[in-house]
Amino acid sequence: MVTGGINMLTNYPKLTDAEIGSTLSRPLLVSAIEENTDRNGKAFVKVTLKDGFSDVTALMFATSAADLEARLIKPNTVVDADLAVSEYQGNKSYKVSNLAPAADKLLSVSDFVKLPPVDLDVMYNEIISMLNSAANNYENTHTPLSDLAIRILTKYKEPYMTSSAAISMHHNLRGGLLYHSYRMVKAADALCNVYTSLDRELLLCGAALHDIGKIWEYSTSEAGDAAFTSNGILFGHLYMGASLIKGFTAGYNYNKEKVQMLIHMILSHHGTQEWGAVTCPAIPEAMALHYIDNLDAKMYMFEEQYESLMEGEISDKKVFGLDNRVYKPKY
Amino acid sequence: MVTGGINMLTNYPKLTDAEIGSTLSRPLLVSAIEENTDRNGKAFVKVTLKDGFSDVTALMFATSAADLEARLIKPNTVVDADLAVSEYQGNKSYKVSNLAPAADKLLSVSDFVKLPPVDLDVMYNEIISMLNSAANNYENTHTPLSDLAIRILTKYKEPYMTSSAAISMHHNLRGGLLYHSYRMVKAADALCNVYTSLDRELLLCGAALHDIGKIWEYSTSEAGDAAFTSNGILFGHLYMGASLIKGFTAGYNYNKEKVQMLIHMILSHHGTQEWGAVTCPAIPEAMALHYIDNLDAKMYMFEEQYESLMEGEISDKKVFGLDNRVYKPKY
Amino acid sequence: MVTGGINMLTNYPKLTDAEIGSTLSRPLLVSAIEENTDRNGKAFVKVTLKDGFSDVTALMFATSAADLEARLIKPNTVVDADLAVSEYQGNKSYKVSNLAPAADKLLSVSDFVKLPPVDLDVMYNEIISMLNSAANNYENTHTPLSDLAIRILTKYKEPYMTSSAAISMHHNLRGGLLYHSYRMVKAADALCNVYTSLDRELLLCGAALHDIGKIWEYSTSEAGDAAFTSNGILFGHLYMGASLIKGFTAGYNYNKEKVQMLIHMILSHHGTQEWGAVTCPAIPEAMALHYIDNLDAKMYMFEEQYESLMEGEISDKKVFGLDNRVYKPKY
Amino acid sequence: MVTGGINMLTNYPKLTDAEIGSTLSRPLLVSAIEENTDRNGKAFVKVTLKDGFSDVTALMFATSAADLEARLIKPNTVVDADLAVSEYQGNKSYKVSNLAPAADKLLSVSDFVKLPPVDLDVMYNEIISMLNSAANNYENTHTPLSDLAIRILTKYKEPYMTSSAAISMHHNLRGGLLYHSYRMVKAADALCNVYTSLDRELLLCGAALHDIGKIWEYSTSEAGDAAFTSNGILFGHLYMGASLIKGFTAGYNYNKEKVQMLIHMILSHHGTQEWGAVTCPAIPEAMALHYIDNLDAKMYMFEEQYESLMEGEISDKKVFGLDNRVYKPKY
Amino acid sequence: MVTGGINMLTNYPKLTDAEIGSTLSRPLLVSAIEENTDRNGKAFVKVTLKDGFSDVTALMFATSAADLEARLIKPNTVVDADLAVSEYQGNKSYKVSNLAPAADKLLSVSDFVKLPPVDLDVMYNEIISMLNSAANNYENTHTPLSDLAIRILTKYKEPYMTSSAAISMHHNLRGGLLYHSYRMVKAADALCNVYTSLDRELLLCGAALHDIGKIWEYSTSEAGDAAFTSNGILFGHLYMGASLIKGFTAGYNYNKEKVQMLIHMILSHHGTQEWGAVTCPAIPEAMALHYIDNLDAKMYMFEEQYESLMEGEISDKKVFGLDNRVYKPKY
Amino acid sequence: MVTGGINMLTNYPKLTDAEIGSTLSRPLLVSAIEENTDRNGKAFVKVTLKDGFSDVTALMFATSAADLEARLIKPNTVVDADLAVSEYQGNKSYKVSNLAPAADKLLSVSDFVKLPPVDLDVMYNEIISMLNSAANNYENTHTPLSDLAIRILTKYKEPYMTSSAAISMHHNLRGGLLYHSYRMVKAADALCNVYTSLDRELLLCGAALHDIGKIWEYSTSEAGDAAFTSNGILFGHLYMGASLIKGFTAGYNYNKEKVQMLIHMILSHHGTQEWGAVTCPAIPEAMALHYIDNLDAKMYMFEEQYESLMEGEISDKKVFGLDNRVYKPKY
Repeated sequence: MVTGGINMLTNYPKLTDAEIGSTLSRPLLVSAIEENTDRNGKAFVKVTLKDGFSDVTALMFATSAADLEARLIKPNTVVDADLAVSEYQGNKSYKVSNLAPAADKLLSVSDFVKLPPVDLDVMYNEIISMLNSAANNYENTHTPLSDLAIRILTKYKEPYMTSSAAISMHHNLRGGLLYHSYRMVKAADALCNVYTSLDRELLLCGAALHDIGKIWEYSTSEAGDAAFTSNGILFGHLYMGASLIKGFTAGYNYNKEKVQMLIHMILSHHGTQEWGAVTCPAIPEAMALHYIDNLDAKMYMFEEQYESLMEGEISDKKVFGLDNRVYKPKY
Repeated sequence: MVTGGINMLTNYPKLTDAEIGSTLSRPLLVSAIEENTDRNGKAFVKVTLKDGFSDVTALMFATSAADLEARLIKPNTVVDADLAVSEYQGNKSYKVSNLAPAADKLLSVSDFVKLPPVDLDVMYNEIISMLNSAANNYENTHTPLSDLAIRILTKYKEPYMTSSAAISMHHNLRGGLLYHSYRMVKAADALCNVYTSLDRELLLCGAALHDIGKIWEYSTSEAGDAAFTSNGILFGHLYMGASLIKGFTAGYNYNKEKVQMLIHMILSHHGTQEWGAVTCPAIPEAMALHYIDNLDAKMYMFEEQYESLMEGEISDKKVFGLDNRVYKPKY
Repeated sequence: MVTGGINMLTNYPKLTDAEIGSTLSRPLLVSAIEENTDRNGKAFVKVTLKDGFSDVTALMFATSAADLEARLIKPNTVVDADLAVSEYQGNKSYKVSNLAPAADKLLSVSDFVKLPPVDLDVMYNEIISMLNSAANNYENTHTPLSDLAIRILTKYKEPYMTSSAAISMHHNLRGGLLYHSYRMVKAADALCNVYTSLDRELLLCGAALHDIGKIWEYSTSEAGDAAFTSNGILFGHLYMGASLIKGFTAGYNYNKEKVQMLIHMILSHHGTQEWGAVTCPAIPEAMALHYIDNLDAKMYMFEEQYESLMEGEISDKKVFGLDNRVYKPKY
Repeated sequence: MVTGGINMLTNYPKLTDAEIGSTLSRPLLVSAIEENTDRNGKAFVKVTLKDGFSDVTALMFATSAADLEARLIKPNTVVDADLAVSEYQGNKSYKVSNLAPAADKLLSVSDFVKLPPVDLDVMYNEIISMLNSAANNYENTHTPLSDLAIRILTKYKEPYMTSSAAISMHHNLRGGLLYHSYRMVKAADALCNVYTSLDRELLLCGAALHDIGKIWEYSTSEAGDAAFTSNGILFGHLYMGASLIKGFTAGYNYNKEKVQMLIHMILSHHGTQEWGAVTCPAIPEAMALHYIDNLDAKMYMFEEQYESLMEGEISDKKVFGLDNRVYKPKY
Repeated sequence: MVTGGINMLTNYPKLTDAEIGSTLSRPLLVSAIEENTDRNGKAFVKVTLKDGFSDVTALMFATSAADLEARLIKPNTVVDADLAVSEYQGNKSYKVSNLAPAADKLLSVSDFVKLPPVDLDVMYNEIISMLNSAANNYENTHTPLSDLAIRILTKYKEPYMTSSAAISMHHNLRGGLLYHSYRMVKAADALCNVYTSLDRELLLCGAALHDIGKIWEYSTSEAGDAAFTSNGILFGHLYMGASLIKGFTAGYNYNKEKVQMLIHMILSHHGTQEWGAVTCPAIPEAMALHYIDNLDAKMYMFEEQYESLMEGEISDKKVFGLDNRVYKPKY
Repeated sequence: MVTGGINMLTNYPKLTDAEIGSTLSRPLLVSAIEENTDRNGKAFVKVTLKDGFSDVTALMFATSAADLEARLIKPNTVVDADLAVSEYQGNKSYKVSNLAPAADKLLSVSDFVKLPPVDLDVMYNEIISMLNSAANNYENTHTPLSDLAIRILTKYKEPYMTSSAAISMHHNLRGGLLYHSYRMVKAADALCNVYTSLDRELLLCGAALHDIGKIWEYSTSEAGDAAFTSNGILFGHLYMGASLIKGFTAGYNYNKEKVQMLIHMILSHHGTQEWGAVTCPAIPEAMALHYIDNLDAKMYMFEEQYESLMEGEISDKKVFGLDNRVYKPKY
């Protein structure tokens, strides 16, 4: 678990907090290795290192990918690394002088992977709990829709908790899908107190499941990196999510109309066809879901930007997805 | 059946061919009745009359919808009508002096409904035949995909043959879905001779089934008029078509990859998300299907326009869907 | 005040609930009079009548605008009307046989004007109260920003409570600006519990004041109808709202940075330049405000649509501003 | 001529088929030379080598462009090359240890240039033959339009057969204009059997000539690389193509109306002004031409992608011009 | 000729200046006749009347188009009319009690047609004169480009002076093409004094000829109303204008490069392909022409609007082509 | 001051005119220093050098940013440089062998900064003079609007004369704002002679002040490089410019309506919301200002391109902001 500036699982501080001029010996995760050749034909490698907070690229000279592999160092290896931190064009630069498989065999990949700021189990359980609270059994005529949602989340608990929610835009981290869904369920719940004619059970089920298809649209590596699957390209997560819902209804006494509305919400949560919606929101819960989705994505992008901005500073370029530079106020 | 300028089922010529100044007594279909009040408070009605070629609006004074209903004349009634044809602002104007339920009880609604220029049975049978010709059983390892398509077309033969393909844009007539599918299957077949790497079975199945979801997206009246269903608004024909395919695979030994491709083609045949595609074409057959679909739609629009244009004439405004006025050359 | 199907101020039911075939004698507000001539040159008038729920257009024959004016009936006159309700093309049609200035002199224009479903005073007071709760005095170094917002709302209390929020799109009714602001303040407050890093005082002030410039962009008639002013055309409500904020800071010890952020939020709440934003949101509160604004507008549009839709029905066309037809589920 | 994996003109296999770790000595075409300096100030060169299938970039150290020129090696020189194939970041990397002008003086530039998969002469002759078959002399009242097309293709046979059809998008190879025109003529012919009201002669002439202006819009090098001309920038190939047609009518007895239609087809074949059409298609043949053009371009792009994709694989990014990643099915 | 509020050719004031309640007997031009039937089946007509300033629609009861024709009154007839002016919904309404062919046989159609505010001959001569002033003979090596422009304007003097420049957007009046060209030539000349590197001869020729193709794109009636021709639909005025220039070069010693630039300017003066440009401006004179063209069109639209707006008033809706309502300041 | 090919302030020619193979010793301005590391870990630097005409990037090996700083060479230092000019891929390449603070202490940063082709004082004075000429005091009832403009230009004379007008698009140089405003005032003045109903005083004030807000939107370095300020991101130059005008009216007897129009012009000069206008032009002066602004920007872009193009040449790619490649005619 990662909090503040200390990785609770390794007791090591952020790599990006190391001072210029310092040298470090510490465990890290190698998540990628890229070999390059200098102009004289000598191989060197760029290694991507994860410390549980972010990715850092470091150079290691006079070695090759094959050399490293011979020493059992491949992508997704936990290593003990010796690094030197220097300055380069005003930014920190990292050089690796030595890499070896980590001596501490208790360390695992997951100890170095960035996670959301809320514990995964806490979020998962809170979603289930809120779905239960919102359940509506229509005076015993039907099984609540919440039950359908919970059955799905129970069956796919593991990928639902670990999938990323994007390749690069927002919530692109291990557990990103869960974190995104979690905050949306909470926002949905809060807004139902303001817009009281909204169907709370329906909106919460929609918030919890709207991106469930991303489990199959992306493959998320153990290190939290997402990549498109061929099914993602051929069908998209809207169709796959809607199909999933449909497959979970057979043999259950759900209110059919309400299941239809849930499927409609998944198909329409991108809002307009221009942004990939299969159909446009035709009920208020679908429209509310669309805005809650967008809002959460944008809030995440601001939070990401604010991590590296000083107060009173503007970002040095337009942020993709935000249409403007970002400013961090100074109060 | 309708051909040239004579309705073969009623032996009556086109109503729009009647000369100005003439009076007529003939059977027609009343497809809609709209009551209006003149400035003095007197009711009169506009009746929509179908002759098997097109819709004509006629005025009937000194009567009301209730009057007509009392005489058993409602929408979808075959009537004997007395009409006078006059000129109004350079166009023909129709006035009804008398309406009565048709004496000839053998006449039915379908005798007056516009149909495609090719016989429905001929088209349906030819599609089945071409699908059979294109069938590929992968050396007995799988049931051909064509078999899946034919099973669907067999089960839904009646709505597939009678549905309209649109509210107003193109192929908006009884049998429009079939006519559109028929010409697309033929075009697909022809292009496979040019682009020989295309999978003929796959492309023909896609052409035959791409709009199958329209059976549930629209409800087509007996008179050939289409209206959106709530399922059409909530899900769209792409999702409904793709779901249908999926539902027909259980218990059959189809090549799974090929079924996936067929589903992808249905989801992507609108080409881009801006035009409502769920995903964009990722295989050449999906892209070819998209263009064949567009081409057939545009050809239909030109044919519609040409019916009422003289040689050397331009249409009097831009045609919706064609982005320009239409010109009919004079050779 | 208007609730359910009875106008509490006049004790009369909805005019649109009157049965076909019935005649009525009751007080109503004439909000507009339009004279027409029938084909024989005789004048008749269309009068727009308000009952506190909606606008109804009725025909009155054998009279003219001048006739009515001679009888002291002009726009914004409360009248006693004799009406007959008939059917016309499946819809209700209203004919006026007599109009006279209302005998009950206690009735006033405001008794017949549509108002939001929450009492104006209740909403106004709740906004002030929530702004007070969110006030932040930065440990006595500054006057809270909430104070600035409250000073503005105090000075412009009357127009803030009565202005419409639009010509036709959403919240286009007397008190519309207040109702829109009220629900947004509540939604903003609710979301701050989910997105805890948002500055609650800033977001609530933005929600309360974001459309304050509409007071000068539109002129709202006593009957609740809005029209553009020339200042609205020349400057727009974003610029006028931002200028207003600026004008209220002189002589006060507000946190300057926070005032700047509030001005930025007003200038950017339309989200992108394409939708009229002066600049795009550069802080998360500005982005959140943009989505809360859009969400509230769309919820209003759905509520409007649902008033006239039956369960299981779709609207008969795309709703302007919603990009789709609307469906009302049947549970 | 190039077929399968062997260059029939040189008897050498594809350079990209060489195994990692191997060394090669073989003839190749140097099509471009780019000098670079390493960080120590030493020159090295990147040479672009063509083998008749594709372009490969190889590094040659310890030399300069001037060195190579002194040894008579410039762009468009056929050379004997010694190469070593290694792996670099999972891809093949090529290093040149020696280059010399080819010993076999019979080898020429054209032996190494990528060509379409169908022989140029075969395609040219087939176009002429199909145009002849479609000729219509209007019962001897006019010279057929096909005659006009054939006169143009005869006069400009050489550039028509060798020009590229694009800088980079599709058919960007020597003979690309011919290959594109050839398949379009065949597709046009096939579709005329489905859409029987289309004028076959007109559509085939349009397909053969629609891009004729590209002869002047681009200059295509002997090696098949295209570059814009100033006339291309100033006038575009639509205007230049249309002007060319006009210039070929003087002194001939063509049907004037039909020539006008051909000019219209050239001016409108990009479909909409947004995509550069001078006017939008106003006759069905112009619309059909537009779709045939688009279809052929997309089919080419898929074919290009499929050359380097494995079955079951998706392309690693969106393909420019296709709006999606490409998938190659595995059957 | 029309100036101020008096038609100099007929000595009659603006018809729209007639007071409500008054009756008039005066000559007018009937430019269109439209027959309608009232709800009782009686014919009446709407006649479009021109007074040299604008078009007025008047009703004439108890007559028909045939009646009028029998009395020799057809479109484009000069008549003596008896009219009554009344008020209708706050606007003036015109009723015709009698129409007869004008007694004054010296009156002709052109006396009643709206013309630009500058005399046609004055404008034409000034254009010729400015072209002559800008002529550049390149030290006797070439015939000036101005000579080419003047030859074209001489040959097509009559249609150049009388054509409209649009169906409805701007300069849609007899002489509109000339007026538009005239002001653009003057603006071009003025801007060459600021942007001194612009080629004055080239820019003035471009301004004078840029819309010359509209002579064939529209047919302008004697009464000043424009309609699209089929050539306009098939080719557009850009292509037709450019072709015209080309046709005027044979046998003359113009600087070829400069003629090419003039053709480029005509093809590119719409600025971007989205607005119909064949190519985009590639030289500064082409870009300047584009802006001068747009500026003149917008100035005309404002002038049209200002004719009917009071000071301090905004137009009652967005003006098509101006993207906003128009305001007329009060100083 | 910079003219032709000689920097009048330093008597040195353009650095880009130095011949390949030559070496130079001369004063230059170092405007930026960027450190890089070669593959062997050795630092080298890229220095950006200004000669008064343009920016040149040169490499200096075997040194680091820290080395240079130790020798007092930082950004914005005037230096004596020893350079060698070589060729690299057909372009000139510059290597620095030595750098030292300039011996001539009279040289300053401004001697090496690119300036507009017209003297700053001349432009400023001419603007003031033209504003004075256009002043209108409404027969002594008001202080002229020109007076307001002149007061602003007097107070902000220094930043108005030195600010850049853009980050990179056009007029992105020290004095760019002034040069852009100057030519626009002249163009505005010239066009008022053609469009005589335009209010000259208003249009000239608008031209002089339309971009005044850029003084706060950008910070322009002494070397002429512009960067966004946080106020620029939060408010934009339209809002800041309009607010500035408002702030200058207190205590003066300007015609209020005219001040409003000036504010409207500043808010609307981007033309449409898509391009960032706060409102769209509602008066002809605002529309004219928009086109004059665009025209001047495009003319500047062409001039920039033409500096480096040969006659008969096209630019090697589309020019950002011009939508096409640029061609330089050869006469």
